[in-house]
Amino acid sequence: MALQSFVEVKPDSHFPIQNLPYGFFKPEPSSPARPGVAIGDYVLDLSEIAKAGLFDGPILSVSDCFLQPNLNKFLAMGRPAWKEARTTLQKLLSSTEAALRDNASLREKSLFPMDKVEMVLPIAIGDYTDFFSSMHHAKNCGTIFRGPQNPIPANWFHLPIAYHGRASSIVISGTDIVRPRGQGAPSGNSPPSFGPSQKLDFELEMAAIVGPGNELGKPVDVNEAADHIFGVVLMNDWSARDIQAWEYVPLGPFLGKSFGTTISPWIVTLDALESFACDAPNQDPHPLPYLAEKISKNYDIPLEVQIKPAGQQDSCVVTRSNFNNLYWTLTQQLAHHTINGCNLRPGDLLGTGTISGPEPDSYGCLLELTWNGQKPISLNGTTRKFLEDGDEVIFTGCCKGNGYNVGFGSCSGKIVPSPP
Amino acid sequence: MALQSFVEVKPDSHFPIQNLPYGFFKPEPSSPARPGVAIGDYVLDLSEIAKAGLFDGPILSVSDCFLQPNLNKFLAMGRPAWKEARTTLQKLLSSTEAALRDNASLREKSLFPMDKVEMVLPIAIGDYTDFFSSMHHAKNCGTIFRGPQNPIPANWFHLPIAYHGRASSIVISGTDIVRPRGQGAPSGNSPPSFGPSQKLDFELEMAAIVGPGNELGKPVDVNEAADHIFGVVLMNDWSARDIQAWEYVPLGPFLGKSFGTTISPWIVTLDALESFACDAPNQDPHPLPYLAEKISKNYDIPLEVQIKPAGQQDSCVVTRSNFNNLYWTLTQQLAHHTINGCNLRPGDLLGTGTISGPEPDSYGCLLELTWNGQKPISLNGTTRKFLEDGDEVIFTGCCKGNGYNVGFGSCSGKIVPSPP
Ligand SMILES: [Ca+2]
Ligand SMILES: [Ca+2]
Ligand SMILES: [Mg+2]
Ligand SMILES: [Mg+2]
Ligand code: NI
Repeated sequence: MALQSFVEVKPDSHFPIQNLPYGFFKPEPSSPARPGVAIGDYVLDLSEIAKAGLFDGPILSVSDCFLQPNLNKFLAMGRPAWKEARTTLQKLLSSTEAALRDNASLREKSLFPMDKVEMVLPIAIGDYTDFFSSMHHAKNCGTIFRGPQNPIPANWFHLPIAYHGRASSIVISGTDIVRPRGQGAPSGNSPPSFGPSQKLDFELEMAAIVGPGNELGKPVDVNEAADHIFGVVLMNDWSARDIQAWEYVPLGPFLGKSFGTTISPWIVTLDALESFACDAPNQDPHPLPYLAEKISKNYDIPLEVQIKPAGQQDSCVVTRSNFNNLYWTLTQQLAHHTINGCNLRPGDLLGTGTISGPEPDSYGCLLELTWNGQKPISLNGTTRKFLEDGDEVIFTGCCKGNGYNVGFGSCSGKIVPSPP
Repeated sequence: MALQSFVEVKPDSHFPIQNLPYGFFKPEPSSPARPGVAIGDYVLDLSEIAKAGLFDGPILSVSDCFLQPNLNKFLAMGRPAWKEARTTLQKLLSSTEAALRDNASLREKSLFPMDKVEMVLPIAIGDYTDFFSSMHHAKNCGTIFRGPQNPIPANWFHLPIAYHGRASSIVISGTDIVRPRGQGAPSGNSPPSFGPSQKLDFELEMAAIVGPGNELGKPVDVNEAADHIFGVVLMNDWSARDIQAWEYVPLGPFLGKSFGTTISPWIVTLDALESFACDAPNQDPHPLPYLAEKISKNYDIPLEVQIKPAGQQDSCVVTRSNFNNLYWTLTQQLAHHTINGCNLRPGDLLGTGTISGPEPDSYGCLLELTWNGQKPISLNGTTRKFLEDGDEVIFTGCCKGNGYNVGFGSCSGKIVPSPP
């Protein structure tokens, strides 16, 4: 029988003892944020567990990593520390272990109902990079923006294309997104348009969070890249397609993306995802040696996007995709990122790019789902080409195991109007 | 007669009492870094001045901003604090003021010969953005990469184009630059090339350093943008043209730029540059209202690039340009950056883009100077298409005033070989 916790975990919970994702939370709005892991409908306060001396392994017993204002110090410590924490916490939370189970005052201090706490960004993000690793997304966007002749650029099958994103505007799930204003392409001889974006979109992505970094000038070997990845979150790379289309030649996306990027509060570790590993797609042409991995892994993570239209109570599924639609693996992305000597730092965020599948009902953004507004989708009796003010977009991701899930919770945000 | 300091300032010094640029330094390799201003051949330690109670104005007397590990807190305080610091320091360093001049023990503790100290990055850089604001550079690059038909993209005259850069690899002047490895475009049916970049280049830029930021969702008015800019540094945006040319479609520069960016150690304040303000170029077409400024200012800052070829003692001037070649002003860049609601934070770095002038001897990078390697330049009896291992590139910038300079010192870096 699977490992069980003394904390009640409902069968459909994303957060059984097999998961234990990391986040940062405030028990009360005025209290300082502290690290926690999710267990069932509760959050376990790791600062209290640390203060109680229950991280008793050789690495964590002598570290103050859970008394910091974010997870970065823990991330920098690497996989041995992460493994030790996982072992300690699975033991502490198991139904057969008395230390926390039978200590009412410690339970009182350290276990908080998840629906009563405020989640905050768990990491200080030095740099955020966004890749472009779904072939279906690359093909669809290329067709829409540049036409059906050679929609996928020549370089795409040789390297995991990426651009630098904006770190300052990354926000936690639940934060409202202000509709951006900006320029759109002129029609004919008129000047460019200006105003609130008319083509506001979501992008269904996930993002890897970097653990130990690398020194400037010292690339990471692709076969060691997994040791530099702590875990994964859901990410919504909100995009204003009209702003993007006008600005992006020749230096890439800028204001069409930098007004906000939402991540889910819980970082699911690679260790928890390991049971859901699957083969990555065969790559043809063969990648260059620096991208050729001995073991090339994807993860089977079903993903779903719902929209709750403005003024309505119910949300509506608009797409279902899966992390395993990615062509380039997380480890190839990381190795490529450093091959020129670029240094990564703990807490850096590496977005996968929009995760579109092959079928129209698995496309990862409205640009593709509505084919740039040409085919509106219907939602609970209303229709959408792009997002309207008041619309809420909700991502979920959940791996289905044998008798338990390993889930990501949700990543949501509501559109609010532009400033006047 | 111009204001004079009791500290000796040679006539050609970049750092008279009219300048007082800010940096961060270590008196000894093992000592903690602290803030300083440059005066003649000396650095004045602001932490010692603060501890001695000599910042006696209403704002700084109650602040610990000069006892921090970087300038970010001081930057966040805004122009009133910066003006108070400037007034206090000009008075303290003037030839007629006894407080420091006649206090031998304080002079001993607070004044260090510049050639004996180690300069470090003065700011924690949250995000780095690079603009593309010289029309001559845009035209030359467009011609080289995409041909002479319409070399300047349609959007260029309507908005200050920019891309997000990599913050982690920004280094202080004097840091060696490791030649990046990476992919280059395939020829014919062969796979892409891989190895050390064969087209390593410098880019002559300057960069604005953001003072107070703005809240996410709240754009900065272009006429108030100057209050968000603390000062300016020299910047070398090292670029690998072969990597860049192969990777940049469709999402912009990534590994061709992210292996290193060098900034000069001294931040020259906008207040010190004010005497060198000049009119910005007339803009046709007229910018949209959010970019139309009541006063549109450039600065007359002569710039020079020298290369000291590998194995040689002497360096050789390869180009002379001027900050006033920029089409888009710093304030337009900043207002554009925030028009979509993107938040800036204190210490963010906004690069101008390569500052090329109209004439071939004022182009700001080797790509333009050698026309992508077609016309090698000669240097002290040797020639260069692009940079070779051991080459050192040295930027200087210096405004010429009436009897004094306001200079930036230098921004230099030497190329070292790729890892094996
Ligand atoms: Ca994206
Ligand atoms: Ca540049
Ligand atoms: Mg975004
Ligand atoms: Mg660079
Ligand atoms: Ni960044």
